[in-house]
Amino acid sequence: MSKNILITYSVTDEQTAAISAAAPGSTLRNILKKDITREDILWADIILGSPPMTYLHENDHLALVSLNSAGSTEYCAPGILPDNTVLTNATGAYGIIISEWMIGMLLNIYNHFAYYRDLQKQNCWQKLSRGRYSVYGAKILIVGAGNIGTEFAKRAKAMGAYTIGIRRSDTTPSEYFDEVHLTDALDTLLPQADVVALSLPGTDETAHILSDERLALMKQGSVLLNVGRGSAVDTDALCKHLQSGHLMAAALDVTDPEPLNADHPLWQEPNAYITPHISGGMDSPISRRIIFELGLHNLKAYLGNGDYRNVVDRNTGYRKL
Amino acid sequence: MSKNILITYSVTDEQTAAISAAAPGSTLRNILKKDITREDILWADIILGSPPMTYLHENDHLALVSLNSAGSTEYCAPGILPDNTVLTNATGAYGIIISEWMIGMLLNIYNHFAYYRDLQKQNCWQKLSRGRYSVYGAKILIVGAGNIGTEFAKRAKAMGAYTIGIRRSDTTPSEYFDEVHLTDALDTLLPQADVVALSLPGTDETAHILSDERLALMKQGSVLLNVGRGSAVDTDALCKHLQSGHLMAAALDVTDPEPLNADHPLWQEPNAYITPHISGGMDSPISRRIIFELGLHNLKAYLGNGDYRNVVDRNTGYRKL
Repeated sequence: MSKNILITYSVTDEQTAAISAAAPGSTLRNILKKDITREDILWADIILGSPPMTYLHENDHLALVSLNSAGSTEYCAPGILPDNTVLTNATGAYGIIISEWMIGMLLNIYNHFAYYRDLQKQNCWQKLSRGRYSVYGAKILIVGAGNIGTEFAKRAKAMGAYTIGIRRSDTTPSEYFDEVHLTDALDTLLPQADVVALSLPGTDETAHILSDERLALMKQGSVLLNVGRGSAVDTDALCKHLQSGHLMAAALDVTDPEPLNADHPLWQEPNAYITPHISGGMDSPISRRIIFELGLHNLKAYLGNGDYRNVVDRNTGYRKL
Repeated sequence: MSKNILITYSVTDEQTAAISAAAPGSTLRNILKKDITREDILWADIILGSPPMTYLHENDHLALVSLNSAGSTEYCAPGILPDNTVLTNATGAYGIIISEWMIGMLLNIYNHFAYYRDLQKQNCWQKLSRGRYSVYGAKILIVGAGNIGTEFAKRAKAMGAYTIGIRRSDTTPSEYFDEVHLTDALDTLLPQADVVALSLPGTDETAHILSDERLALMKQGSVLLNVGRGSAVDTDALCKHLQSGHLMAAALDVTDPEPLNADHPLWQEPNAYITPHISGGMDSPISRRIIFELGLHNLKAYLGNGDYRNVVDRNTGYRKL
């Protein structure tokens, strides 16, 4: 069963050994995405990682592509992959690291760390008169209660928050949510929440889900976190609600437009906290490990040991449940 | 049983009503510490809060002082309180809010939020090449595993950290610590820890417990958090270990000297994160609530319902266990 395995992200010697042990006699190429050639693509029976999309359709023996990204829609477009290639995504690999960004930003805001940093730069020991807030006792509304939203809820709940999840279709109770609702409950729940956290994919349904009207429904002095897609929020309206003081703060790892243009007023809004889409990504050891383990698991499944995980339905672009 | 009750911190109408219900017929004065007169002190049978220390010894009917601070040493000095006054402290009131500061600072450092804030001020969308770190999988050494250290361990463990506690005398296992050791294990444990968190009282034993030599023992690239007393750390040595890059960062809510003098080099050290002793304090609703509930509990104990909580041994200045 000698197979050609192409890995598009850097792996350790230990990980290479684990692959060789799982697929004895196989040949391995570890080539970063940017350096992959047509010959590499046509050579591979199995690809672990997210390869360049050109040439894939020319490879009639490509059995499995185990992506390192949670999103997979571009690989589902007609003509990209051969018909019989199994496609899996990396759902589950980023929840831990992104939820740490979310908890971190919320505590950053609640403890006024950015303002104290400004005072530090002036060599100034001075207590601010801003109120002190805590995750303990806060009511947190999590819109999009998938892997990321659930990991965030787990941490917030461990810190004493009351967590409310909003899902598209499934209101099965979950250990980490005190309540779970469908999207139609949003307008009722927004005015109650101290924190609204968005972890939504970018779809037609989620575009401007936080419109001007919905931002106005948010509780006076509440906080918005967005780690899904920037398009979920009406950016101009958000600027307005930050400037008026209706919202205490908004922490955004995603923006609309993205990247945020250099002359956008949001940059200079002191209660906007902007990071350039870095909350996830493969530079965290834990995400790298989960992605590798998923790839290894799916390689074993291909070789007849167990079932694939995270298989994408190439007709819908969503993960098969 | 009509009693005169003086409360030195602001209370809500609901809280006033709870006190009146617990002590029917009693008279209440709610006067902030700075406005309290000798007459108020001499009038009181019971004081909820931390009163000015002058005049207390003149009050021969003062039955109970239920402090709002965790520290109580100054009230234990001879001649401050009448012999028979029961003194209680507010141990347990600040663990939640201080542990949120600790988790927040660690995530602030691990996610490079201060550096992204600087980029934001320049309207700059740019990913930093600094590595990404996570609490998940980190080994955290907590020196001083009392209420604050335990609340921090609870949160860190919920986020997937491995937690090691160091206590002065008691190595009873705890749900939130993977290991508990005595202080003599410090030199062995320091080189293993990704994070060293100090939550120690200011005593002779803890002064410069993190000396130059011990800071050198810390793991390359590790993080120091200090919320106890500034005196626990050799500040000059800390500056050196930050400048050399031996430590990734140090987050300090307490310093030595405190306040930090305006020309101290630590202010301009980019990987020092300094806040002016604000991690605890009565401005958080949860701390206010716990302190009030403790005061109410001890008032009831005085009236014969239940036992006092957090009674201070006035000979040692420590809480009676």
